[in-house]
Amino acid sequence: MKFPILIINFKAYENSYGEKALQLSKSIDKVARESGIEIVVAVPSTMIHRISKEVSIPVFAQHVDAVPEGAHTGAVTPEMIKEAGAAGTLVNHSERRVRADEIDDVIKRSRRLGLETIVCVDRYELVVPIGLLGPDAILVEPPELIGTGVSVSRARPEVITNAVEMVQKVKGLKLIVGAGISTGDDVYTSIKLGAHGIGVASAVMKSKDPSKVVREFVEGAKRAVSERITGT
Amino acid sequence: MKFPILIINFKAYENSYGEKALQLSKSIDKVARESGIEIVVAVPSTMIHRISKEVSIPVFAQHVDAVPEGAHTGAVTPEMIKEAGAAGTLVNHSERRVRADEIDDVIKRSRRLGLETIVCVDRYELVVPIGLLGPDAILVEPPELIGTGVSVSRARPEVITNAVEMVQKVKGLKLIVGAGISTGDDVYTSIKLGAHGIGVASAVMKSKDPSKVVREFVEGAKRAVSERITGT
Amino acid sequence: MKFPILIINFKAYENSYGEKALQLSKSIDKVARESGIEIVVAVPSTMIHRISKEVSIPVFAQHVDAVPEGAHTGAVTPEMIKEAGAAGTLVNHSERRVRADEIDDVIKRSRRLGLETIVCVDRYELVVPIGLLGPDAILVEPPELIGTGVSVSRARPEVITNAVEMVQKVKGLKLIVGAGISTGDDVYTSIKLGAHGIGVASAVMKSKDPSKVVREFVEGAKRAVSERITGT
Amino acid sequence: MKFPILIINFKAYENSYGEKALQLSKSIDKVARESGIEIVVAVPSTMIHRISKEVSIPVFAQHVDAVPEGAHTGAVTPEMIKEAGAAGTLVNHSERRVRADEIDDVIKRSRRLGLETIVCVDRYELVVPIGLLGPDAILVEPPELIGTGVSVSRARPEVITNAVEMVQKVKGLKLIVGAGISTGDDVYTSIKLGAHGIGVASAVMKSKDPSKVVREFVEGAKRAVSERITGT
Repeated sequence: MKFPILIINFKAYENSYGEKALQLSKSIDKVARESGIEIVVAVPSTMIHRISKEVSIPVFAQHVDAVPEGAHTGAVTPEMIKEAGAAGTLVNHSERRVRADEIDDVIKRSRRLGLETIVCVDRYELVVPIGLLGPDAILVEPPELIGTGVSVSRARPEVITNAVEMVQKVKGLKLIVGAGISTGDDVYTSIKLGAHGIGVASAVMKSKDPSKVVREFVEGAKRAVSERITGT
Repeated sequence: MKFPILIINFKAYENSYGEKALQLSKSIDKVARESGIEIVVAVPSTMIHRISKEVSIPVFAQHVDAVPEGAHTGAVTPEMIKEAGAAGTLVNHSERRVRADEIDDVIKRSRRLGLETIVCVDRYELVVPIGLLGPDAILVEPPELIGTGVSVSRARPEVITNAVEMVQKVKGLKLIVGAGISTGDDVYTSIKLGAHGIGVASAVMKSKDPSKVVREFVEGAKRAVSERITGT
Repeated sequence: MKFPILIINFKAYENSYGEKALQLSKSIDKVARESGIEIVVAVPSTMIHRISKEVSIPVFAQHVDAVPEGAHTGAVTPEMIKEAGAAGTLVNHSERRVRADEIDDVIKRSRRLGLETIVCVDRYELVVPIGLLGPDAILVEPPELIGTGVSVSRARPEVITNAVEMVQKVKGLKLIVGAGISTGDDVYTSIKLGAHGIGVASAVMKSKDPSKVVREFVEGAKRAVSERITGT
Repeated sequence: MKFPILIINFKAYENSYGEKALQLSKSIDKVARESGIEIVVAVPSTMIHRISKEVSIPVFAQHVDAVPEGAHTGAVTPEMIKEAGAAGTLVNHSERRVRADEIDDVIKRSRRLGLETIVCVDRYELVVPIGLLGPDAILVEPPELIGTGVSVSRARPEVITNAVEMVQKVKGLKLIVGAGISTGDDVYTSIKLGAHGIGVASAVMKSKDPSKVVREFVEGAKRAVSERITGT
């Protein structure tokens, strides 16, 4: 992953699968190529193969099961998503929480396979503990703001600043923040506050013009980066 | 589904995904076409689309989540598997059990989408209760025999005869039995005892020559059917 | 259990444990004795022993685990609650759902121990399937009304009438209804519609005068019964 | 808690509840008083009140639910066990695992109530991450050895030495080790290797003479301590 980064979680929205998801992925891919900003799409397991064949951006799973290969009906394993073309996976999203030992298992197995992991947590206090398990990034999202359109950067900026402080204690760990991110300014502010990227779902998936929203987010990210470079 | 039927559950075995799974599916497809016996493959969600494009037999999911479309990270919904090419889904496998209300939700939503459902139970006492919720078939598997190579038809034939008695109380319901099925004789006996089909996983997935095993199973099924027709 | 019946679920409210719970139980016991209407209290596992020693009404657990005796840290088994003085247990409350096989396990083990079981379901379609497993009663509660003060008898009377129709298909099964029950009229209407009892939690537990609420409920139940007797 | 310490987990064994559990607790209490070694009993929630009234040693719950007070049927909250007389609780036992956010919730709420927490983990890699959340002690148990009688100190001493190294990174954190502990020598070795205590279940609960086993454990602990003092 290259930072700053936008993570777009397709979740199980009606445009998260099938032809709509393919078109959406291609348009996001186009924005990423034009802007030079890294964008990851986290898609349903049924779509990983089809989408990853069509785009150059990294395609992530939204969840994998921490079970070894074998007699595990219904499991989606790290090996399966890797083979299907995934570059990584989300882990422990607040809509699909797993246990601490499972987080450790998934991170270790993913790393061995060359898959990247972004572990979601619901509070900044978990950034260091989970960060020590060695994921590529931590995505902090206060669950009460998810899907509200009230962004963490406006409503609870202290979650970001606290998490920024925490993430610096773990060497190499990157911080992504999310929940309610809905404008380019939210992205700009989050990155200015010290985040390495943002996670978003409903603002893109429920938009009538998702490309436009993504482009706006990318602009927010670029603005924050350029100010960092110029020192403003 | 057409009966008698063989359900081959790929589970998460190392040949359940990727090129190996595609080749295996094609060879099973060939046996099905040559024999005229219906065979269903239940495959990982990442593989549904690729396999269903390549074969004419029904491809099933191994599990779906009972959540509606929307903000449900990591979910595999009935709509997603339908779009990917699935003809149906297993529900409530002993390795992926769900609650009674979720079974009801999945059956209802699947039916609306034209997906077939095979609900697994671990005891014959659940055949009627779960059968009343309206699945296409019930798959009875004593979990302690799964993967052992000691078949339910040899070790616990009373599970089959009890389940046969139960299934007749629910109009239109079909009975599939499984656990430890490993020879053509196991298939023959199961169907002779009154089952409409058998479920199998390890005997096929862990075999060095899976096609041969499937062919043997098909022969067992044909033998049982022909005796039924000739009345022996 | 004697019908009509009131089930008062203490849940984990701040007065569900300790001295407050003991006083509340005693005052409910008094109403039950004075009115002759059967009232069950479902209390936290830490309180079963203390409350059951102090009252003559049946004390239920709110949940038991379907595990056998042995190495099961944190489990509350049917044997444990029996020994503590419980007369029965709720099973599968919408706030503590369990799987179909676990419901079957709990019912069988409870019956063997002489414990009564009231299985909660969230829809009338589950009354017959779960009823066939042999619980003493089914408690139907549309979860969207729980805790709202908008009663199932006012907002969704068809849930009750449908459930009444269903429960008659299972010999000996009793029907309790709940969700939003908050007045004596709600109790009266529920029983008039055919229920054998009602389940309640917040209306009692969050009341400033719980005895008064319980007394009002008892009056509603008595009114319905007397009309049934006199044929009005 | 005072160290070295023995944690005796009653689990759900047939003598974990009722009169047998009371007698067992009293005999353990006697050994603790006579030896001066701290012993904690972790008992079923139905027994906390009765046992804590009868003994002077700390009584722990085996599990608490991370839910706030309110509409949570079947929950056992920190407040409930506190009121019943518990001094603390086990958290995240391998037979009752919970999520990382739940571990954090339980630790915080317990501390506020003056309850001690011992968080179980299945690998030494989790000692620091979970330790950072602030429990009083971490109990490391390789699950594959639990209940085997093959002790972690004999079969996998490196788990202990690795955990000892880890626990020193978190100020004030204590390390307890367990799984298969069955002799006084196991206790002695564990403490000599650097653990602050041991956890045990089956060796005591399934013994015909539990007091004798506990006394032997206490002797092992005392021997390790005296050698530490005399520098042998």
